[in-house]
Amino acid sequence: MVVLVVMKRPRIYLAGPEVFLPDPIEAGRIKVALCAEHGLDGVYPLDASLPLAGLAKPTQAALISRSNEDLMRSCDAAIANLTPFRGVSADAGTAFEVGFMRALGRPVLGYTNATATYLERSQTYRNGARLPFDGDAKDIAIEDFDLAENLMIEIAIQASGSRLVRHTPAPAQEMTDLEGFRVCLAEARRLLVG
Amino acid sequence: MVVLVVMKRPRIYLAGPEVFLPDPIEAGRIKVALCAEHGLDGVYPLDASLPLAGLAKPTQAALISRSNEDLMRSCDAAIANLTPFRGVSADAGTAFEVGFMRALGRPVLGYTNATATYLERSQTYRNGARLPFDGDAKDIAIEDFDLAENLMIEIAIQASGSRLVRHTPAPAQEMTDLEGFRVCLAEARRLLVG
Repeated sequence: MVVLVVMKRPRIYLAGPEVFLPDPIEAGRIKVALCAEHGLDGVYPLDASLPLAGLAKPTQAALISRSNEDLMRSCDAAIANLTPFRGVSADAGTAFEVGFMRALGRPVLGYTNATATYLERSQTYRNGARLPFDGDAKDIAIEDFDLAENLMIEIAIQASGSRLVRHTPAPAQEMTDLEGFRVCLAEARRLLVG
Repeated sequence: MVVLVVMKRPRIYLAGPEVFLPDPIEAGRIKVALCAEHGLDGVYPLDASLPLAGLAKPTQAALISRSNEDLMRSCDAAIANLTPFRGVSADAGTAFEVGFMRALGRPVLGYTNATATYLERSQTYRNGARLPFDGDAKDIAIEDFDLAENLMIEIAIQASGSRLVRHTPAPAQEMTDLEGFRVCLAEARRLLVG
């Protein structure tokens, strides 16, 4: 008798603001290909590939949200691109997804293409022009734990057995550099495959 | 025989950047008192009341994170203050917590003291001075679903049977106005107590 054992490759949810890039599908294709090189199944959010044309905006938003929540539940871990997005912190949707996977008990890995600490970025932000209101003011505390992100996010990564990978890319490559992502892929293999 | 039935009041996790206010404990006390007026047990994150003195920063951060995750698991729902914080979006830790409670299947309610849409705030942000790198650029898409926040957050609130409450407070009251919070408390009662 021949027993065929097919090993299921771990599924990795690819959280990050790449869905807002000029070519979001290509950005996802590149990450999924890198996952495959590491023996992992990359699962990219479907924002840009769902059939949304002609639907009302609230319906579109609900479809994207439900589809991505379903994808997350189907995954074994997440790798989050926590590079700052329109402010001091990571993209809010990515932060939501890190919390979501953390609550499900799935390992969360992450990288950022900004190496300054959260404290340093907040100080830079405080010194510049901003929105009419953005929640910042002289007497509002700035987290100072030598971390790269809000502690709820970075500690979730540490508690997953990893660390938030900080990397400085070449200028203008901040949104697309994948060196930190590659480090996370190796981490994912170590944690999920051994 | 006398049977004493003690109804457990629903526990509401109070997510938001109030933990960074000059007097975070007082800000929490006020919210917890409002919860009690609505027959709800407000549960405020312990960032400012944990015994952290003398501990190394990484240990402090890990204690806060674990304590808040444990608190969230103990709660029946969350009310999130999604007012923009150091950028276009809500505080990253708050976004994490919305995702966390959503993954646990607990209702998530939310309010923001900024009434502009996410699109409008992003456009304002794009026209001002910012961090050396913040993820924004002319060719980076801006979500346009007529929502007040990233769709993963706002749809999570809608899927909880509620809506993200938008309210414009008096100038300089953006971080402390509780009108939206009161609406959320009524929503929480409707969803949890009936």
